[in-house]
Amino acid sequence: MTVPLRIVALSGGVGGARFLRGLLAWGEASGTALEVTVIANTGDDMRLHGLQICPDMDTVMYTLGGAIHEDQGWGRADERFTVAEELRPYGVGWEWFTLGDRDIATHLARTSLLASGLPLSAATARLCARWDLPVALLPMSDQPVETHVELASGETVHFEEWWVRTRAAEPARRFVQVGVDDATPAPGVLEAIGAADAILLPPSNPVVSVGTILGVPGIADALRATPARLVGVSPIIGGAAVRGMAETCLATLGVPATAAGVALDYRARFGLLDGWLVDDADAAAVPEVQAAGIDALARPLWMSDLGATAAIAGAAVELALTRS
Amino acid sequence: MTVPLRIVALSGGVGGARFLRGLLAWGEASGTALEVTVIANTGDDMRLHGLQICPDMDTVMYTLGGAIHEDQGWGRADERFTVAEELRPYGVGWEWFTLGDRDIATHLARTSLLASGLPLSAATARLCARWDLPVALLPMSDQPVETHVELASGETVHFEEWWVRTRAAEPARRFVQVGVDDATPAPGVLEAIGAADAILLPPSNPVVSVGTILGVPGIADALRATPARLVGVSPIIGGAAVRGMAETCLATLGVPATAAGVALDYRARFGLLDGWLVDDADAAAVPEVQAAGIDALARPLWMSDLGATAAIAGAAVELALTRS
Repeated sequence: MTVPLRIVALSGGVGGARFLRGLLAWGEASGTALEVTVIANTGDDMRLHGLQICPDMDTVMYTLGGAIHEDQGWGRADERFTVAEELRPYGVGWEWFTLGDRDIATHLARTSLLASGLPLSAATARLCARWDLPVALLPMSDQPVETHVELASGETVHFEEWWVRTRAAEPARRFVQVGVDDATPAPGVLEAIGAADAILLPPSNPVVSVGTILGVPGIADALRATPARLVGVSPIIGGAAVRGMAETCLATLGVPATAAGVALDYRARFGLLDGWLVDDADAAAVPEVQAAGIDALARPLWMSDLGATAAIAGAAVELALTRS
Repeated sequence: MTVPLRIVALSGGVGGARFLRGLLAWGEASGTALEVTVIANTGDDMRLHGLQICPDMDTVMYTLGGAIHEDQGWGRADERFTVAEELRPYGVGWEWFTLGDRDIATHLARTSLLASGLPLSAATARLCARWDLPVALLPMSDQPVETHVELASGETVHFEEWWVRTRAAEPARRFVQVGVDDATPAPGVLEAIGAADAILLPPSNPVVSVGTILGVPGIADALRATPARLVGVSPIIGGAAVRGMAETCLATLGVPATAAGVALDYRARFGLLDGWLVDDADAAAVPEVQAAGIDALARPLWMSDLGATAAIAGAAVELALTRS
């Protein structure tokens, strides 16, 4: 009997989900049995029109469940918009946040399960059961933690409003994790970290995705305490985010939007990071990262297709399992 | 300048909505300017999957807004069911209560408005604005009042579960208006009653629709105190409900399911009713109703088309305006 390799990944939305799909493909291709636990960011969650929406968990669930809109990276394939078209004339706001019909069904089911008294982690397990997910998907916390953005103007908005409506046009003065002080890791989170053979940081946003997860009291401590090595994949290639607008978020923290900058920030803010993959284009950053005591390697990091993504994930796992 | 005739109607769902459409058509055809206030039953309201659903108000709104599914009598015309199809595999329950996509948009808008702090009456006004309704549609109360059904088995279920899922198969031992003691009439309800020239009871269910409205503390008192006469249209023709399953509900109260039985019950339970229309088939009931001091007339009461419905509504208005 093969003992599976126990992997924990801290994931945001699109980048994390695609990386995870590559990880599973790598396991399959290399004949490595994997037991993957995903600890997902829930800082972007919100209650909209009564619906509990978890953008990052939905993206992971749809991606690994084979239901994702491939080109878009989020939302459902073959989506329809009858509800959104009907909602608009009522003029109740948030018209820029278009909810697809299929996606709404997920939010209704989640809201229903939460209303019946289940915590978010149990509701998520129920939703994932439909998709027969090949990973355990856990919210970082069962308590609500909402990322709010304090703008330069002094106004504070929900992260999704800043990100989706304004495309982060106005600089963020700071990010506030509303509720984080009262949050505890969801059931299974600390156990998975303690039992892991490798901890991976996919190329998710280091500030508002991975950083939010690491902000939940107890999670960073557990990661520092676990014997497993923690290896990250740079979300910055050649000075720009692979996807999304991570540079803007890094700028708010005063962190250089470079492959080395993000690695050193994980060290500085959280005392974490044993290994770091940078893109071949950033090979020059390797010595700087290594000088901080982090094993660094340059590899092709564009997740251009499943094969390329599997190779990235495989390199991350191998770096995590190799003691320097 | 014509002073409009101020009419208040107490309405349930399908029967009430069709009657109201007839009333408006009668006003148009007879050149009578009308100012109609509809006090709607909200006892069937529920929170389902996080959505606030008001079945009777939606039926009135869609019917008078020209968006109703004509054959069905409730729900939206040209409805679609992508959300329901997607919701089913999650298995969260209430699969028998199918929500259409267009209808869901209404519930999302309402839930959103309520979440923003509006009372139900103000949220309803916002929803109705989209449909440019030719009436003022008021919930009977801004406080939640839920009709629950105590079954012969001792189990208690929400009215919609008994009505829609089981088609009222198991007899109801009694109806409980959860929350009614703390409910007050919605803003505008008592004012409209006090200023009315005529009060009409459409052929709605006398127990769980009109009876529920009359159960809100203050409403029956106001109706007894107003100088306007109160005229009802029998929902029972030839011993059977025109629509729905009113007989079952009447049986629970021990009231005969006859045109006279319902009239006398309005008198007995609420001390109300100045006039009563029965169908020609029930002309024999006229003397019995009149013996109780209620003006009774026999008329064709099948709301078979808009013209027939307009004639019924016109007869009801005229009976209300005629002092015996």
